[in-house]
Amino acid sequence: MPTPPVFDLQFQQQLDALFRWRRDVRHFKTDPLPSGLLDNLLETATLAPSVGNSQPWRFVVVEDQNCRKAIRDNFEACNQEALKDYDGQKAETYASLKLSGLDRAPAQVAVFCDSHTTVGQGLGQKTMPETLKYSVVSSIQTLWLSARAQGVGIGWVSIIEPDMIKEILDIQQDSWDLVAYLCIGYPEEEHDVPELVRFGWQDRLPFDQTVLRR
Amino acid sequence: MPTPPVFDLQFQQQLDALFRWRRDVRHFKTDPLPSGLLDNLLETATLAPSVGNSQPWRFVVVEDQNCRKAIRDNFEACNQEALKDYDGQKAETYASLKLSGLDRAPAQVAVFCDSHTTVGQGLGQKTMPETLKYSVVSSIQTLWLSARAQGVGIGWVSIIEPDMIKEILDIQQDSWDLVAYLCIGYPEEEHDVPELVRFGWQDRLPFDQTVLRR
Repeated sequence: MPTPPVFDLQFQQQLDALFRWRRDVRHFKTDPLPSGLLDNLLETATLAPSVGNSQPWRFVVVEDQNCRKAIRDNFEACNQEALKDYDGQKAETYASLKLSGLDRAPAQVAVFCDSHTTVGQGLGQKTMPETLKYSVVSSIQTLWLSARAQGVGIGWVSIIEPDMIKEILDIQQDSWDLVAYLCIGYPEEEHDVPELVRFGWQDRLPFDQTVLRR
Repeated sequence: MPTPPVFDLQFQQQLDALFRWRRDVRHFKTDPLPSGLLDNLLETATLAPSVGNSQPWRFVVVEDQNCRKAIRDNFEACNQEALKDYDGQKAETYASLKLSGLDRAPAQVAVFCDSHTTVGQGLGQKTMPETLKYSVVSSIQTLWLSARAQGVGIGWVSIIEPDMIKEILDIQQDSWDLVAYLCIGYPEEEHDVPELVRFGWQDRLPFDQTVLRR
């Protein structure tokens, strides 16, 4: 059996810096990723935990320009609809935010959950079937951190219609549900403060507002 | 503005080791965590991404022994029910698996999502409201990695009834939904292979079965 690694204080501090500088990226350079990097990142994502070891993540690497355009059009339409929910100053701020990197990100991946997978044989899902999709989210956060450690940014686009994305990508598997659409590439800028904080949309919550004791 | 960190090859390799050695832990030492460590870990978890910066994670630190016993009883009942779904050799294997560390884990945290939070003002949730719960999952994976880097193991228990757990913990907020119940403490053993693989329940999938191209 291999020897377990020892993570020293220096690593712990760098890991903390990784969490602090991760960011949801919407401003990408158009430079392509080096050959093989995306596959390596996706393989790392499969080291995430999954309920009953079900590994329900299904990654669809989107390269076709027609697909990308149709997805961007769907985002633009949904974003216009969402804008209608805000008035006055809030609407102005919303309209000024850049909420996706679909225009420039060199790599794009739609992440699905196989909600009827038999892998893992249902273990752990009986009372909380939603843990299958949660497993896919864990793989996305793993991907995100691994990418950032290599200088690669990720932006998670949720202002889209899942069924439309599935149709655009011609995904025939009934049991596949869209969990996320990811833009991936080198960021134009690096920040330790989220864009929605910097542009006055939403500050960080005080930590003590998120903890109760029983 | 602070200088962005540079993550070198050594860090990248250690991060990869962290992903490989994370593990879902069910066998805990009873040694308590050092004072303050759990709060530090939970605060690190709040560095996770969240849709519209909604920060919907709500952590309930469970110390009361009556609550812990009631939760463990709920797990035992659910686990007996789940066992009935399997026959023959599969049922024998299921019954032999240790599926929670509720008996010994020195720290336990119920993680909820505030599904009606106004923080973030709904940004990004209109077409995919489930991203609010996904944000909470991202915070759990962040917590998990930060803990493991400090030698602390986490086990995610899903074989429980969410509404019962909420009742046991006397959570009055209607809008709070249980996402996970976590056992936290020092692991009895360290492994780079998941327990469900080692005990013959479910092997790893070949990577190429999880990727499509469009």
